[in-house]
Amino acid sequence: MIYFDNAATTRPSESAVKKAEKFIKDDYFNPSALYRGGLSCAKEIGVAKESVLKNLGLSPTKYEVIFTSCGSESDNTAIFCSGNRGTYLTDKGEHSAVYQSFTELSRKKAAVHFIGLNKDGSVNTEELFDYVQTNGAGFVSIVHVNNETGAINDVNAIADQLKRINPSIIFHSDGVQAYGKIPFVFSENIDFYSISAHKINALKGCGALIKKRKSNLFPLIFGGGQENGLRSGTENVFGIKTFQYAGEEHYADIYANFEKVQSVNGYIRENLDKNLFTVISGENASPYILSISAKGLKGEVIMHALEDCGIIVGNGSACSSRHRFSRVIEACGYDKGVLDGVVRVSFSQDSTLEEAKEFIDRINEIAKRLKEVMK
Amino acid sequence: MIYFDNAATTRPSESAVKKAEKFIKDDYFNPSALYRGGLSCAKEIGVAKESVLKNLGLSPTKYEVIFTSCGSESDNTAIFCSGNRGTYLTDKGEHSAVYQSFTELSRKKAAVHFIGLNKDGSVNTEELFDYVQTNGAGFVSIVHVNNETGAINDVNAIADQLKRINPSIIFHSDGVQAYGKIPFVFSENIDFYSISAHKINALKGCGALIKKRKSNLFPLIFGGGQENGLRSGTENVFGIKTFQYAGEEHYADIYANFEKVQSVNGYIRENLDKNLFTVISGENASPYILSISAKGLKGEVIMHALEDCGIIVGNGSACSSRHRFSRVIEACGYDKGVLDGVVRVSFSQDSTLEEAKEFIDRINEIAKRLKEVMK
Repeated sequence: MIYFDNAATTRPSESAVKKAEKFIKDDYFNPSALYRGGLSCAKEIGVAKESVLKNLGLSPTKYEVIFTSCGSESDNTAIFCSGNRGTYLTDKGEHSAVYQSFTELSRKKAAVHFIGLNKDGSVNTEELFDYVQTNGAGFVSIVHVNNETGAINDVNAIADQLKRINPSIIFHSDGVQAYGKIPFVFSENIDFYSISAHKINALKGCGALIKKRKSNLFPLIFGGGQENGLRSGTENVFGIKTFQYAGEEHYADIYANFEKVQSVNGYIRENLDKNLFTVISGENASPYILSISAKGLKGEVIMHALEDCGIIVGNGSACSSRHRFSRVIEACGYDKGVLDGVVRVSFSQDSTLEEAKEFIDRINEIAKRLKEVMK
Repeated sequence: MIYFDNAATTRPSESAVKKAEKFIKDDYFNPSALYRGGLSCAKEIGVAKESVLKNLGLSPTKYEVIFTSCGSESDNTAIFCSGNRGTYLTDKGEHSAVYQSFTELSRKKAAVHFIGLNKDGSVNTEELFDYVQTNGAGFVSIVHVNNETGAINDVNAIADQLKRINPSIIFHSDGVQAYGKIPFVFSENIDFYSISAHKINALKGCGALIKKRKSNLFPLIFGGGQENGLRSGTENVFGIKTFQYAGEEHYADIYANFEKVQSVNGYIRENLDKNLFTVISGENASPYILSISAKGLKGEVIMHALEDCGIIVGNGSACSSRHRFSRVIEACGYDKGVLDGVVRVSFSQDSTLEEAKEFIDRINEIAKRLKEVMK
């Protein structure tokens, strides 16, 4: 099987799972317990937090890590729990976890605005800054890497500029598709940053919200006061440790992986039959995500035809797979013909050129055949 | 090691983990993906839901299961997300996930009231019904099994009586310490019921909220619309399947386990040195939890002395282990002398009489020695 749907989820790292296994088999204690086994689990969670901060080049005196159950929970927590911020601003390219949270704020009568996208799915920063200059903003959320097109928003520069306009703006970024993949040391103007374990070869059911210590936050989930009172519920130690180990594996090779994936991605870009395919992802997009469209064909049909050849790709974001068109690609300004044909190909550090070659042979052939059938 | 802190967390079942492992190793797909691997994971989640309902004797036409990240999230979802219910009623014996959520409602100026406890930690139902008759109630949450004393509240009878007083009351019960342990088929007057995986030998990071289909619910976490739109975030398939398998193991032997644990619990009750210990748990409590107090001694000191002999017990609820006294045992009406000496001993289906004997020898000896030192 060639698995090219790594933006939806990744195969858990055998070595990371193996290392963390003892937290199921032996050290299964409750981290809130006051005996040695419990205290040791609590300490291990602390080590995992330090590791996350280290990966991002952040100081534990300035930032803290709150482990959550997923990227969506991290996004929701940042958006709903940093107090009433007045005007809420985001963009049309956000993952549903942010997008739907903003929609909910809007249902609750908050002032909410969605900024438009450039053709590659990146945020129209001119529109963003103009809006903030004119209307003000209390809370801004901009995704780091667009999960459908791979467009990288320069969230450092965006955060810096927003704080120049108004230092009291709270800035959040969904970093789920960036963490472990895009080399990045983040600006201290970022208040909150969401990450997810299962996107970097750790497990589903674990995520984190990185929080500037100075920024206010209230819990989304109340109870035993775990996670420094900010996220109650017994900590998922096994998930957290697997997340730590997988993160360390990613960061140890982040530059080499980036280059490797770039060559895989580049091969496909270059060899796609240009009479049949439009490349939606920009040249500067994350190499891990390649969004293409088979003009006049249906992405879903191509996906299934590839599946029959043992190749797995996504059609649009799995998280919004219930809708016919991708809301995000539509916001990039494409018409129905392109929207219908969208296929998202997404890689991992384990993707190979051989896989890319096999993929190219198959997809070009499939699209050609389907076109001919339609004549 | 003798592990008698099973109310805090349990050792994951090797067989359940083994059976679910393929959802890490092979079937790691995103359940929202539209190819076969994804659809198959989605189907497996459906099977896990059916299993939970079957265990509780519930019909899928009347009830549905929403998988969450933990019991605390399930409690919070029921409490915060079933609409504004006017007056909120609970009791002083609740787990912090319910107790602190009610405290939060109170901070938000909702009408909140906490009903008192009987000496064994069960809810004073006379006070409860009087309160509802006099003041009305929109939402009532009563724990099924008290996590500190093991007191079983007859939530069926309570729900039935509440609905007789006012059919529009929404009734929730935290069933975290009951599910898989207390044979129980629940009344259709229960609207919401929270359960947790790691309390029944599955993994931390997974829980569920059982919901009457007719009852309203809004999401606590917004996003991709998973869990029928009620809980977004990529589903923790491995956690969910381990929960299913561990649940099935528990329910296959629920009566035999209950009796076995009763005999372990009974042996300890009988053989505790009555000059040194007060038994807090009532005769009809869940056999899985035995709360005792070494009068005039400190529970924590006993816990550590037992730990040095390889015996693990809890002191009060691990989830509130940061407070000196247990809020719950205090609400049972005990004085400082008793509160200081509380030790919670909690069993699993794997606990044995041999372990109970070893425990008794040790704890009686430790308490005697400590008393003598204090003379």
